[in-house]
Parts: sequence; C-alpha cells; structure tokens
Amino acid sequence: MNSVKDALTMRQAANELLAADNILILCHKNPDGDAWGSAFALYAALKSLGKRVAVGGLDFLPALYSYLGDYCRQTAEEFTPEYIVSVDCSNEERLIATPPAQVDLCIDHHPSNTFYAKKTLVQPERAACCEIIYALLQPLGVKPDKYIGSAIYTGIATDTGCFKFMNTTAETHRIAAELFELGVKAGELNTLLFDHKTRARLALEKEAMNSLAFFSGGKIAIITISLLAAEGCGALETDFDGLTSISRSIEGVEFGITLREMKDYYKCSVRTGPLNACAVAESFGGGGHIRAAGFESKLPLSELIEKIVDECGKQL
Amino acid sequence: MNSVKDALTMRQAANELLAADNILILCHKNPDGDAWGSAFALYAALKSLGKRVAVGGLDFLPALYSYLGDYCRQTAEEFTPEYIVSVDCSNEERLIATPPAQVDLCIDHHPSNTFYAKKTLVQPERAACCEIIYALLQPLGVKPDKYIGSAIYTGIATDTGCFKFMNTTAETHRIAAELFELGVKAGELNTLLFDHKTRARLALEKEAMNSLAFFSGGKIAIITISLLAAEGCGALETDFDGLTSISRSIEGVEFGITLREMKDYYKCSVRTGPLNACAVAESFGGGGHIRAAGFESKLPLSELIEKIVDECGKQL
Repeated sequence: MNSVKDALTMRQAANELLAADNILILCHKNPDGDAWGSAFALYAALKSLGKRVAVGGLDFLPALYSYLGDYCRQTAEEFTPEYIVSVDCSNEERLIATPPAQVDLCIDHHPSNTFYAKKTLVQPERAACCEIIYALLQPLGVKPDKYIGSAIYTGIATDTGCFKFMNTTAETHRIAAELFELGVKAGELNTLLFDHKTRARLALEKEAMNSLAFFSGGKIAIITISLLAAEGCGALETDFDGLTSISRSIEGVEFGITLREMKDYYKCSVRTGPLNACAVAESFGGGGHIRAAGFESKLPLSELIEKIVDECGKQL
Repeated sequence: MNSVKDALTMRQAANELLAADNILILCHKNPDGDAWGSAFALYAALKSLGKRVAVGGLDFLPALYSYLGDYCRQTAEEFTPEYIVSVDCSNEERLIATPPAQVDLCIDHHPSNTFYAKKTLVQPERAACCEIIYALLQPLGVKPDKYIGSAIYTGIATDTGCFKFMNTTAETHRIAAELFELGVKAGELNTLLFDHKTRARLALEKEAMNSLAFFSGGKIAIITISLLAAEGCGALETDFDGLTSISRSIEGVEFGITLREMKDYYKCSVRTGPLNACAVAESFGGGGHIRAAGFESKLPLSELIEKIVDECGKQL
C-alpha cells in the first residue's frame, strides 16, 4: 500500500499519460455523471493527442449520458490495452472491470482513496474528479473543445448538485465560467440532468416518501426501498441517484439515509449536513466523503436500522 | 415615457448615487431573494460611503432572509428620504410602496422594464439584479465585504435556481467565484435557500404525488390539492411555491398543472416547457408568462379538468 506522499503532481500524471498509448479508461461501478464525464473528457483529450483510447463499461451507459457516450462509441477502435487509467474510483473493488485490472494510474478526488494503483493523482479538495481532468488538460497540452467542456461540466454539475453542495469552491465556479466560454450549453445540460424525471423515478420517489421513517427525535430519516418496490416502479440503476437527498433536506434531519434492498444485502447511502457520514459508513466497512458516504450490509432490516441509529447517535 | 436609449451607464448610475443622500431603497412587492439581496447589498454599500440609507418594506421580510435583514434592522436610522432608488422592479405598480413613490433611479434586469423612474439603469442580459449591484460597487468605490457578498450571492442563487436556469452566464459564475473569495458561505446559504423542506412541505409533496393524474397520453399531468388535504399537511402559503414543477418535470409531460382548492374556487397553476402556459391561463381569464401562468376558476373539479385538458389539447 502506498501513501499520500507518493501521490503524483499534476505534471507527473500528465507525463505518465503522454508517455502511454493503447489506453483503457475505467471508472467505478454504477458510474455517475462525474465518472462518465471524467472518462469521456480524458478519452477525448488523449484521442486528440493521437493515442488509441477506450472507455470501459460503455454497455452500462444510461440513455441520460448518451450525449457524451455517442461520440465515444462512434470513434471506438479495437486494440489490446497496454495502460490502464482509472478515474473517480477510490478502491479496486469498485472498479468497473472483471476480472479486476491492475491500474497504472488512478485519478481521483475521494479522500478515502486506497492508493490501489501503481501511481495515483488524488486531490480530495476537488468537488469533482472532472475538475482534476480539466486541470490536467493544460500540462497535457490539450485545448478543450465543446465536447470536452460538456463532459467536464456534466461531472462538475452532477457532483455538486449544480453548484449547490458544500464541496463547491471558487475554483469550481471559475472552471464553470471557462466552460461556458467554450460554448457548453449548460442550461440545456442542466434541464437534461436535473429537470427530467422518468415515470419510474417518480414512482420511486413516491415509494421513498411513503417509506420515510424518523428516528432520534426526527434527526435521522430513513428511506427503505425493497426489491419488490423497486421492481414495481420499473426503476433503473440511475433512478436511485440522489434519492437520499429527499430525506436529508427535511427540517431537523441530520442524517438522511436510504436502505436499498439488493438480492442478498442492503445497499446503504448516508447523507449529512455538518455531521460525518463517512464515519457512519466506515463503521459498517464502507466509506466515501464527509457528507456523502455508503456501505453494504447483510444484516436483517430491523437490526440494520437499529445499528444505524446507534452509529448516527454517537454524533448527535 | 423614456426609452431604452435613455438608460444610464454604470458610471452614470454610480455618479447619481454618489451625489445623493438620505436614500430610500425600494424593491417589488412580494420580494424574492434577488429583490432583498439587491436592496441589502446596495444599502450596505451606500452606508459604507457614509450616507443615510433605508430599505422599504422590511415588515414583509420572511424569516428565511433574516440573515440579511437583521443587519439592516440593527443599523436603521430615522430620516426623511430625499432620493428614492428602486431595485429589481420592472414597473411602478409592482413597487413596494404606498402611496406610489416617484423613483429617482431604477436599477433593474427585467426586459419588460417600463422606464417609470426619472433615470434607469437596466441590463436585461443579467441573470439577477444583484449582478448589476455587484458591478456597481467598483464605480461606487466600495470594496465588498462578506455581508454585501452574501446579499449578492442570495440574489444570484435564487434568480438562477442555483446556477441551473438558462439565464446563468459565464459572468454569473465569475461573480460567484469572487463572492466565495470574500468568505461568503455559499454552501450554508444554499442549504438555507434550497435544501430546507418543512415537514408540512414534505407532506404536501407526498399528497401532490399521490394525486397526480395523467391525461392526453401522459402529456398533461394534473396535481389536485383539496382544502382538507392542505389542512391535513399543515401547509402554509409558501409551502405551495414551485409545487407545479413536480408535474412539469416528468418525462413526456408538456403541461404541468396544479389545482388547489380554495374556499369557493380553484387556484390553478400551469407550467410548460416549449408550449404556451399563458394561452391556457388566458382562456380561463388568467395570465402570466409563456412558461408559467395561472388562473382561478369556480367550475366543479371534473368539469374544470375536462376544460383544461381541452384547452391544453389545442396546442398538443
């Protein structure tokens, strides 16, 4: 295991990429906007340098992100990867690759990054991995175009809740301003990313609201979605994105939690305001960010809820 | 009536303000975040120049904005106004003043501004009136502090839906970046402005979702809230804000409509994407904007719905 002091500088990471070819880009499982945005922006950047590049996991690309993925599909080439870059992926287990691949370079913004790759560029102060990819363009010698800009914007907008979350910085806004000037149609992307609700998502939100239960005097709000309910809603993976914010935003709630029943375990998301979501997730063997973390548990539901209420209670 | 070519430059508007004293600042009725933000930022700026200033309509300040209004209340002085500035107010009738006042200088971003004031600084390309106030600080010779920054941020964030709406520009993001650097706690303000859902609002949203009915192959979505249901939720007037966007954002929906039962009529909101909400409202004697309009009707519910579906149908 390497440590933080082995982390690369921006320049070193760029040199790594400049020296490589036949590059496979991998992000984390169930990729979100920042994972896809990072992968596609880096894809286009390396492609513009004349390299052979591919993005893994394209089969899992939801229709929502096809405005980015289509370019990647259309320009795909067959080749044997010689160099693997992971983006926005904090640990090996989350990598969207079977069998697990040995990653040469990991570019990430998760503070919980395990330094699983041969080399790592990690900047936990960044709101989105896409901010790091954007900053990498300069040492790579790539002038961003509208496509790269749109991919970067997608990652930043989705990971910051459209500049709403606490992770947003002055730098986030400065980058956004530059992306507007590249011709990125941010308003249209925002409508697509934030203002389009599928019927399945609507049904899922209804389910979430009806399942809402409060604990510890209303400071913990837990949404439970059973397998059956999710199937009944016709919910896709992406329909679950941000569901936990429903509970987190209720007045008086300090811990917003979603328990999603999977085949033989519960997938749990924890969202907080000032308190530490990651500490709760870590107590179950998970991880993430201070205000947004996650874990999996095989405990029976009632026991799981009891333990969650206990763990959150340590901070209340 | 003056015309656009009589509009002041930024420098001229600043000179007007620099020459004035005993200044009353007025915004529009039912002031929103941009109106309050503009008024308070300008108040603090003029105050820092040693002028006597007051903001009108403080009695109507909702608790949500007290983090701005408290400073204004604490520093208030008694004086007879000699110069009146209006901010974010497009016409005289909307002015938060009885009897109507003769405005010396109007600072506004509404394209529909009627040039009702003696002098007018109007910049319709600005996302928020607060952007104009911010730009005025430089010719006024005022270095913004955290309070002014927070007021400006409040206006920009609320008028752009936290940088989500189409009116957001590169300049909007550049200003936001500068406000962060003044120490503005944007994340905390965003939580306050966008992420606090009362239990009553939550109950109302649940009610809205459960009442959702689709017509015309899913192109019309209607939410119905009965008096009894609203009472059961403990909903206040402000809890109804933006409720119609729940239906409008569903995939395939062209007309999102909310029918709210009042004592002896229905209060109806219409929201659209590209279609004309105002035309539908006008057919019932109401009015509004192209994408957001409203009307009142005394028709029985089933008849009302039938007629709405008919009127919307003319555009489908």
